[in-house]
Amino acid sequence: MHQLDSKAHEALATLAHCSLTCHSMALVHCLELGGEHARPQHIRLLLDCAAVCATTAELLAHKSQFHTQMAALCVGICETCGENCEKLGQMEDCVSVCRRCAEHCREISRSGHAAALNQGATHAPSS
Amino acid sequence: MHQLDSKAHEALATLAHCSLTCHSMALVHCLELGGEHARPQHIRLLLDCAAVCATTAELLAHKSQFHTQMAALCVGICETCGENCEKLGQMEDCVSVCRRCAEHCREISRSGHAAALNQGATHAPSS
Amino acid sequence: MHQLDSKAHEALATLAHCSLTCHSMALVHCLELGGEHARPQHIRLLLDCAAVCATTAELLAHKSQFHTQMAALCVGICETCGENCEKLGQMEDCVSVCRRCAEHCREISRSGHAAALNQGATHAPSS
Amino acid sequence: MHQLDSKAHEALATLAHCSLTCHSMALVHCLELGGEHARPQHIRLLLDCAAVCATTAELLAHKSQFHTQMAALCVGICETCGENCEKLGQMEDCVSVCRRCAEHCREISRSGHAAALNQGATHAPSS
Repeated sequence: MHQLDSKAHEALATLAHCSLTCHSMALVHCLELGGEHARPQHIRLLLDCAAVCATTAELLAHKSQFHTQMAALCVGICETCGENCEKLGQMEDCVSVCRRCAEHCREISRSGHAAALNQGATHAPSS
Repeated sequence: MHQLDSKAHEALATLAHCSLTCHSMALVHCLELGGEHARPQHIRLLLDCAAVCATTAELLAHKSQFHTQMAALCVGICETCGENCEKLGQMEDCVSVCRRCAEHCREISRSGHAAALNQGATHAPSS
Repeated sequence: MHQLDSKAHEALATLAHCSLTCHSMALVHCLELGGEHARPQHIRLLLDCAAVCATTAELLAHKSQFHTQMAALCVGICETCGENCEKLGQMEDCVSVCRRCAEHCREISRSGHAAALNQGATHAPSS
Repeated sequence: MHQLDSKAHEALATLAHCSLTCHSMALVHCLELGGEHARPQHIRLLLDCAAVCATTAELLAHKSQFHTQMAALCVGICETCGENCEKLGQMEDCVSVCRRCAEHCREISRSGHAAALNQGATHAPSS
């Protein structure tokens, strides 16, 4: 991935880590703890975050013309997930990675960072 | 999936079909045709559409609290993909399924259709 | 997807339907029923089936040289999922689609069906 | 993901990195280089590797009862991808990460490493 700058690499690694952390916490930690941790809406929120982070990473990795819009959606989901995990407690791994991920995605969504910079006119939508 | 109404079922089937059609057309039809069909930005657009439709279907299938936002993003991607495929030609399968998919997603994004109706207060975010 | 024969189309539709059914049943039906249905290993098995069916569909849709191996793995997972769902009860949608999906995948894994037939020497691994 | 040991964490990070590297190289580097790099079977092989690594990571992250079988399939795909990329040249990032990923997956497939160790009898298939 030598064509992505170091900021984009960091974002990709964080997105991938956030996706797998939320997935693992939902299906191992939370389901086994039970109680509030195993409530349907908590498990679904974690899996939303896992799925959307994975797709955002994919779009960013191939410099999709939609990566800033996808990153903007990812900000909201990571923030909601991080906040819910913090309120619930015993979810420290998710809280910290969701926050870092939201920050990366916010920066990407604002600046059209990384892909857009490298991409230039040649990859712009053909409109 | 008996808890989803028939509109949601139809949307899920269309999203899945759109995802696999764009994926297949990109990696078999277009790459083998070569020329304009194999241009990086065309292949990437088809794979954006494939990835985002698959994730939208997943969120809709589990009645995610974010499914309307995801569907709204999916509208724009399906429309862009359908339009580009139409301009290029020899992409009829994509053109028709992308349009149907954009319509389903537009309806979902407007009405909070399906999931929201069934979901009610019990699945609302815990805020 | 006009380059895939009708058998492959049917398999793709079944794989996509199986994936979304298992996903939806796990995260809506089972988590809300609670009890045995919400046991971690049952939820994880349904999500295994959802993930592996989706990936098998993707490989089949682009005529991957690995699609028969992937389909063979998918047979075992669909069968295990279908059997577990049948023992548990109240999982009729999963039982029937997992069985049909296992049959499609078994046929694909045996015959190198669809992709291999169309693929011929030109797409064979470059060895 | 505090319930996975450090070996499993390393494997997850490598699988995620391999998936995004192959995805990015296929859709940016190779399609833009053109020629042999943009041949359909090369692009498809890279995207096979991307998809199967992502699914293997997911199954490993939630300690799926099928994670060793999935890892075994992933070994073969990573090795094939790494070898093809080496023959082709100008694919150094893929060559190195595919090799490391194949090693991690081989170890997992042999030992039932990580998940199986932590998982014990309580999560075994209910058969």
